Amino acid sequence: MTAATGGDEVSRALARWVVGVGAGDIPAAVRRQAQRAIVNFFATALGGCRDPAVEACLAVLAPFAAPGEAGVIGRRERLDALTAAFVNAASGNVFDFDDTHVPTVIHPTAPVLPALLALASRRRIGGAALIEAFVTGVEVECRIGNAVSPGHYRRGWHITATCGVFGAAAAAGRIIGLDAERLVWALGIASAQASGLVETLGTMAKSIGVGNAARNGLLAALLAERGVTGPARPLEGPRGFMAVTGEGGDPGRLTRGLGDGFELMRNTFKPWPCGVVLNPVIDAVFDLRARHRLQPGDIAAVTVTGHPLLGERADRPAPASGREAQVSAQHSVAVVLSRGAAGIPEFADAAVADPAVRALRDRVRVGADAAMAAGAARVVIRCRDGRVCETTVTRARGSLEHPLSDAELDAKLVSLAAHGCPALDPGPLVNALKSLEDLDDAGSLLGLAAAPG
Amino acid sequence: MTAATGGDEVSRALARWVVGVGAGDIPAAVRRQAQRAIVNFFATALGGCRDPAVEACLAVLAPFAAPGEAGVIGRRERLDALTAAFVNAASGNVFDFDDTHVPTVIHPTAPVLPALLALASRRRIGGAALIEAFVTGVEVECRIGNAVSPGHYRRGWHITATCGVFGAAAAAGRIIGLDAERLVWALGIASAQASGLVETLGTMAKSIGVGNAARNGLLAALLAERGVTGPARPLEGPRGFMAVTGEGGDPGRLTRGLGDGFELMRNTFKPWPCGVVLNPVIDAVFDLRARHRLQPGDIAAVTVTGHPLLGERADRPAPASGREAQVSAQHSVAVVLSRGAAGIPEFADAAVADPAVRALRDRVRVGADAAMAAGAARVVIRCRDGRVCETTVTRARGSLEHPLSDAELDAKLVSLAAHGCPALDPGPLVNALKSLEDLDDAGSLLGLAAAPG
Repeated sequence: MTAATGGDEVSRALARWVVGVGAGDIPAAVRRQAQRAIVNFFATALGGCRDPAVEACLAVLAPFAAPGEAGVIGRRERLDALTAAFVNAASGNVFDFDDTHVPTVIHPTAPVLPALLALASRRRIGGAALIEAFVTGVEVECRIGNAVSPGHYRRGWHITATCGVFGAAAAAGRIIGLDAERLVWALGIASAQASGLVETLGTMAKSIGVGNAARNGLLAALLAERGVTGPARPLEGPRGFMAVTGEGGDPGRLTRGLGDGFELMRNTFKPWPCGVVLNPVIDAVFDLRARHRLQPGDIAAVTVTGHPLLGERADRPAPASGREAQVSAQHSVAVVLSRGAAGIPEFADAAVADPAVRALRDRVRVGADAAMAAGAARVVIRCRDGRVCETTVTRARGSLEHPLSDAELDAKLVSLAAHGCPALDPGPLVNALKSLEDLDDAGSLLGLAAAPG
Repeated sequence: MTAATGGDEVSRALARWVVGVGAGDIPAAVRRQAQRAIVNFFATALGGCRDPAVEACLAVLAPFAAPGEAGVIGRRERLDALTAAFVNAASGNVFDFDDTHVPTVIHPTAPVLPALLALASRRRIGGAALIEAFVTGVEVECRIGNAVSPGHYRRGWHITATCGVFGAAAAAGRIIGLDAERLVWALGIASAQASGLVETLGTMAKSIGVGNAARNGLLAALLAERGVTGPARPLEGPRGFMAVTGEGGDPGRLTRGLGDGFELMRNTFKPWPCGVVLNPVIDAVFDLRARHRLQPGDIAAVTVTGHPLLGERADRPAPASGREAQVSAQHSVAVVLSRGAAGIPEFADAAVADPAVRALRDRVRVGADAAMAAGAARVVIRCRDGRVCETTVTRARGSLEHPLSDAELDAKLVSLAAHGCPALDPGPLVNALKSLEDLDDAGSLLGLAAAPG
């Protein structure tokens, strides 16, 4: 179904598409990408569920929550659906190890899926319906992101949070059966809650914006269901979301070609819990380390070269914390050389303080080559014995061109579960997710992902 | 105490003032204005507590709320503190009948006071401490509003919601004893939640932004108390609140002269539940009606003249709903002439549809006179019998120059309680508020304002 796009009623056209798109309108490849995004989300939420930011949110929110309704991934608590949506979204995104929509850098799943999982604890929702609602929610979220990019993020809006609340509202609104008018209201109620600042990145406050996107999107749908009205044109109106936060964005992009292609096909999954610009760097160092059997003591100097963007984002010779290390090329090179690993522990504060890592970090330089592609990196390692090892990676693991395989995503889930929730046997969850489309009750997923006991 | 204002650390300076300002630093006149704002808030929340927007929010939120903790003004429900803060803020502001900070058009009390009242249900808070926290919260909220005005509202930010969340965070943070660093975190967590669009005004979604301001400001303080970090410069940082939403605002205004004067002294209370620009119009019509004993059948034509702003805001000959009637000069004139009243019932949908009101509305014209002051209005009434009655009001009731008296505020509370919660005897609440400074337990106020039964 391709939506008609009246230039001045894009909110309505978008809403009509969300409530009307049929199962047959969503190609199998898109559904498969949805299922993979969901696996990846459970992986990162299991990995993040004991992060201090998540612990603090849970400790503060639990006393205010009605008990018992919805599970928290990787934990024993059961909370009301709104609070569970908040905490699960925060867990999934806390390390920025979740998925990335390439054109916008939105992490699309964290706001949308937790809203649907929370709803699935309240009403019976099948796996196929969950996937369809997820696809439409991500489409809304990323189309809004496309329409306001690049000015919106550049101005300082944390785009995952600001656009995520609309995606959660759309997905939840579809699954509870809102009509198009009420779905426009839901988007309007979402618009009154869209927030999140880039200034908060690197602090725990980032997670509040992302948690709210899931919670408040779900709330928006439930309020609209109950008759809470909103403006007719929350996205494109004169004081609507695009005019206020869009920095000259183009409302027409919200609906142009709607249904012809799907934003989920431009979504990627990270192999490592750090900035995506570092993916080719880490690939290159792993490759050289294995090929030349490099030991930490062998290394005299490392030069990393990439598109100027790499240096702008990640030339950080002395990160002060695990969070800063996630955007440090020097640190990334050093942990792979010293530990042969680049997982959550390698980007924790303890790894930043590790003298062995520090010593290697000091030997890494970052250079720029404007002729190189944005997703590429060249690494040259000079050894004390005179050897010079060099490689260039152009299509890093985790890129659109070299995506993680299904087996790698499952392995990511198992490994992150072992990190964040070692008591959990992840097997049943992995199996349920494999056959998600055929699942009768998607609400069972949160049970399979909860800590035992 | 006047704060030092390092140009690049205004968030910190503001936080230090909030946590450090002593009871003796707040003049008696300011405390008195605080007490009056609190009376006015209970009045409007009692009046608004059965509005359909409030009913819908309560119906949706109650199942998610931990039971029993905090009262809802004018109702029997008891909810968790966060949800109670949301609903009480929504009730207080739903008719825009609450207070108005003149320089910014912020409704300052609705986000701040409900956060404090909710906290007073959890920990014992005395009336004097509540007043001091309220004063500091309103100061933060309105100073941020001053610093981003007029560009922020003009761009489309609903300033009560966007700035209110900071006021609630500051007030709550002070009363739970945050240190300055944690209060900066609380402001940072608030910055990740600041939202609310002008596009939603006139729809129920407006109340979601205002409810969230109270809820999320309280949440921000509680999260900071538990160690959730935020950015060092949430207000003035390069991607902080002012840069992202401030439209060239001046961060220096956040702290300049802090403590020398108080924004609460520029706060006003409405005699009528409609736009403040209509105050002089209504005064004038009441005056002419009484002086000339005008009957509806006498009226041939009415001309309202004011500063061009009056026409821009309120020249609406055919409002379609009660909400739109609140900004219609024609409707305001018509209800006073036909009913001799301008209360909540006169701005409800039924009054808009009343044929007698409609007939009078059609006889009203609005004109502009650029020489007139913004707060003035001239009304000329031509009667069928040839009489011409005319008056000009320059200092309307409810303006800074002609504020409502304490007795009028008490009467407003009694009358709005009769509208929104007729089962309540408002006497004990009015008495408790009279001696608010000496109250041992400010948590008792919500009990006195709850519906009996």
